[in-house]
Amino acid sequence: MLDGKVTARPDTLTVEEPLEIRVGGKPLSVTMRTPGDDFDLAAGFLVGEGVTRGVSDVAAIRYCAGATADGVNTYNVLDVSLADGVAPPDPSIERNFYTTSSCGLCGKASLDAVRMASTWPVHDDALRMDLATLCTLPDKLRAAQRVFDRTGGLHAAGLFSAEGELLCLREDVGRHNAVDKVIGWAARSNWLPVSGTVLMVSGRASFELVQKAVMAGIPMLAAVSAPSSLAAELAAEMGLTLVGFLRGTSMNVYTGPHRLGLVPAPV
Amino acid sequence: MLDGKVTARPDTLTVEEPLEIRVGGKPLSVTMRTPGDDFDLAAGFLVGEGVTRGVSDVAAIRYCAGATADGVNTYNVLDVSLADGVAPPDPSIERNFYTTSSCGLCGKASLDAVRMASTWPVHDDALRMDLATLCTLPDKLRAAQRVFDRTGGLHAAGLFSAEGELLCLREDVGRHNAVDKVIGWAARSNWLPVSGTVLMVSGRASFELVQKAVMAGIPMLAAVSAPSSLAAELAAEMGLTLVGFLRGTSMNVYTGPHRLGLVPAPV
Repeated sequence: MLDGKVTARPDTLTVEEPLEIRVGGKPLSVTMRTPGDDFDLAAGFLVGEGVTRGVSDVAAIRYCAGATADGVNTYNVLDVSLADGVAPPDPSIERNFYTTSSCGLCGKASLDAVRMASTWPVHDDALRMDLATLCTLPDKLRAAQRVFDRTGGLHAAGLFSAEGELLCLREDVGRHNAVDKVIGWAARSNWLPVSGTVLMVSGRASFELVQKAVMAGIPMLAAVSAPSSLAAELAAEMGLTLVGFLRGTSMNVYTGPHRLGLVPAPV
Repeated sequence: MLDGKVTARPDTLTVEEPLEIRVGGKPLSVTMRTPGDDFDLAAGFLVGEGVTRGVSDVAAIRYCAGATADGVNTYNVLDVSLADGVAPPDPSIERNFYTTSSCGLCGKASLDAVRMASTWPVHDDALRMDLATLCTLPDKLRAAQRVFDRTGGLHAAGLFSAEGELLCLREDVGRHNAVDKVIGWAARSNWLPVSGTVLMVSGRASFELVQKAVMAGIPMLAAVSAPSSLAAELAAEMGLTLVGFLRGTSMNVYTGPHRLGLVPAPV
């Protein structure tokens, strides 16, 4: 029953602002994101799209001053200068690189595009994690989410070692952005491919998150919620271990169960 | 404790496939979506972007046969033919229309862009809903989600009358797509602006969802989870009633409380 209590008080809301990522001065992408770790976000986005493959591919990242008519720096526009010899992104990349396939749009084409663009194969990554350690990741992720308890509105992505140590946590209003920030952190730490680790996300495992993990060389993606069918197909195709519904002491392992000791490793 | 039970069985996954929306043959947007209600998705997307304002603005929607090299119809590419006299979308729309502002990218610019693009003001919509009715919406939405219990991976959006009757439910792997499908359903039913209704979503209330509601003339958006700061700002600016954390018999009302009888209507 409604108790009819109405109170007026300030509420802390998650800040959401657009970020435009430019490469060499040319607008490439706009995303609604939680401000903070913007350089990581841009760096990770470019890794996920196959534009950059390491810290040496990026000459500089800077906020664009004078992005507004009156010259104010809004800190919502970033320009990435690529190193000499690094090809600028294909103009069609802004519509996501799986659309550059000459084939019409289908799941198969998406899988092919990622397979072709993938720089580091993850299928032979030697990562092994025991199930008990895997089960600790959601709580560790949640415990590290400082902002979450205040706003309830942020997605989290965490990078964990095989021993279950949290290496990097990033949050964002957008699931993809949180993952881009984690991968960008690794890229800017000169750690690509990000082998031997597990990427844990607070929500669903979509096709695009599997794509981002693969493009960064991360061999395992674990999610609190469900994967999509195309996510599972891509994970199977690329040899990534995909875990969904990781809650308490239960989980669903969709692909790559050998990394969790559930079956022998493929020969 | 882990009980060590490992079982292998088939799992139902939410299907996710890319959908390319073309207008007059020109690619405009690609989204990862749950197949189904694709025509609604395309129609709703175009309303949200301000390209179309009613059923008469669209001459035809069809799947593109021969989208692949071997002429197969993947049912993942849609072409929308606009009616005579309807301006095709600005090429920059694919990066989302708030980026067309000549101002650099900032929250203020985003708000301005939506205000300028908005066709139907929602601030004077006469919708009133009592709190008890509002509290019934999440359960009604959940009950209507046939797919949800099987996969756990779908977002839902539902359109409700002031009396709390569910008028249209759509689900999708993407929150935005679910809302586009609902709005497209209304648009294709020749019901724009969609006045006197409440749009209920299963997740967060982002800036873009508020934008889509406003562009369709829907005066109230209710969400199970948190709104973002920019969502609340846009809702306040446009006169939309924004409700978050609608769970059980509690909720947070961020803007437009007069529609819930909490305060007198603004004069």
